[in-house]
Amino acid sequence: MMDSFDLDAYLSSKRRQINAALDALFRHSTRNIVKAMKHSLMAGGKRLRPILCLAAVEAVGGDGRNAMRTACAIEMIHTYSLIHDDLPAMDDDDLRRGEPTCHAAFDEATAVLAGDALLTLAFEILSSGASTRENNSTDLIRVIHTLSAAAGYQGMIEGQMQDMAGEGVSLALEDLEKMHALKTGALIEASVTAGAMLGKGNDVQVRQLKAYAKNIGLAFQVADDILNVEGDPEIMGKNVGSDQLHLKSTYPLVLGLDQSKKFSKKLVNNALKALENFDTKAHPLRAIANYIIDRKK
Amino acid sequence: MMDSFDLDAYLSSKRRQINAALDALFRHSTRNIVKAMKHSLMAGGKRLRPILCLAAVEAVGGDGRNAMRTACAIEMIHTYSLIHDDLPAMDDDDLRRGEPTCHAAFDEATAVLAGDALLTLAFEILSSGASTRENNSTDLIRVIHTLSAAAGYQGMIEGQMQDMAGEGVSLALEDLEKMHALKTGALIEASVTAGAMLGKGNDVQVRQLKAYAKNIGLAFQVADDILNVEGDPEIMGKNVGSDQLHLKSTYPLVLGLDQSKKFSKKLVNNALKALENFDTKAHPLRAIANYIIDRKK
Repeated sequence: MMDSFDLDAYLSSKRRQINAALDALFRHSTRNIVKAMKHSLMAGGKRLRPILCLAAVEAVGGDGRNAMRTACAIEMIHTYSLIHDDLPAMDDDDLRRGEPTCHAAFDEATAVLAGDALLTLAFEILSSGASTRENNSTDLIRVIHTLSAAAGYQGMIEGQMQDMAGEGVSLALEDLEKMHALKTGALIEASVTAGAMLGKGNDVQVRQLKAYAKNIGLAFQVADDILNVEGDPEIMGKNVGSDQLHLKSTYPLVLGLDQSKKFSKKLVNNALKALENFDTKAHPLRAIANYIIDRKK
Repeated sequence: MMDSFDLDAYLSSKRRQINAALDALFRHSTRNIVKAMKHSLMAGGKRLRPILCLAAVEAVGGDGRNAMRTACAIEMIHTYSLIHDDLPAMDDDDLRRGEPTCHAAFDEATAVLAGDALLTLAFEILSSGASTRENNSTDLIRVIHTLSAAAGYQGMIEGQMQDMAGEGVSLALEDLEKMHALKTGALIEASVTAGAMLGKGNDVQVRQLKAYAKNIGLAFQVADDILNVEGDPEIMGKNVGSDQLHLKSTYPLVLGLDQSKKFSKKLVNNALKALENFDTKAHPLRAIANYIIDRKK
């Protein structure tokens, strides 16, 4: 059954829907702040987090169309974090996905504000009249709480603080895991949880989907570290080996390349196991778990 | 009747309540991100916006205690905007309220993230279980929408973009007004509107309170510009004349000092007029309007 599932078709179809929904949220504007927001938001991201949200809605039997605004908000929160992480005062990256980063294409002040604006717009969209027509206010409040807690100072932001503090320091495996659980894991987990909530999953389902997300979140990071060593820069759209340049602790560095690959496979298996009580409607989530370690960028 | 209202006592009492509520939101932490957030949040601000929110709740007959979390969220949004505006890439200010700004006390990366964290925490608090026990979800969704729209790329953030673009340029009165309506007016208006909503004001009351807020928002800015020319640096906690240093257009510059004072008085009168259908419960709002042009900092 799983073999017949066409993940590529699923991902492109969802990506197209998400991109169209994101585009429709902005009126045509020549204002710099809008250009800067769209520059980063429409720079051809994988849309992994919003797709995970929509796939989680479907896995519990809900209709993904009612979660499209939440999916857009999630991608905005993710994009804001990339814009700010790339700033000269942080990771100082001029290139992302093969394109100039926001501060390189505009200027630093505009990049700070474009990030702020995307984060703020995420909550504006989640609380818009259109969202409340699609979902009830109580569900939306829960989603807003889930996403803001994951993105905040006890989640993604603390992860970025730890990531910066870890530059030039040799991190123990446990600290590396903690950092990634916050920096990338928290928002991935919240994306899946938000989808499960909007799709009206029961408490057990929400818990199982959380476990799924926790495992693929970490697997995603381990695979990213491996790609940073082994990947083709042309395909990746960024410089291979940049982690080493920034003296960042990575899984290949701490565990070795072979053990890292084994570890990421184990995590994906854990994720699949967490889905064992779900029916075929969870096939997209299963396929995404496998894709994480097979992808080339 | 108005004469017997003790604004100083009202403001200090509200300030004390807001400060206690803000402080209670953070568990004790030695983490840098929390220290940076609290450094700016607890730096002795006037708490004008949250007090306006609480006073608006009371003006329509509601209980301010149920809006305390919203008041805290508003102050966090305001503080985040100050932290980011002060950054080297923006206004490059090392001093605010007589204290080192966030990036001066910590570093630039931490200041960017502390601002991000306060903005995110605002929405976490607005959507917390405690908030939903005090208010219903539909009201909270409206409040979240009002605040996020005001703070976003069509509100406060666009105001900051226009403010930066206006440096070294001689702005026409109309453009100066537009910029301030966005940069400071939008959040002040949203603070009052949020209070009116949570206090269950009717549509007419919400509209009248919005008109009040629009006028005091602009009056506040004009008065600020006048203080920047005339104020005592010891009382103000920042360098007098700094607008001139940044070559910013100000009301005294565009209108002259006398006309600016007349203009701010006219705005305060408009604000008082917008409250004429309100009873004595709107006395705090009336007193705050008068205070705006009488204050020394």
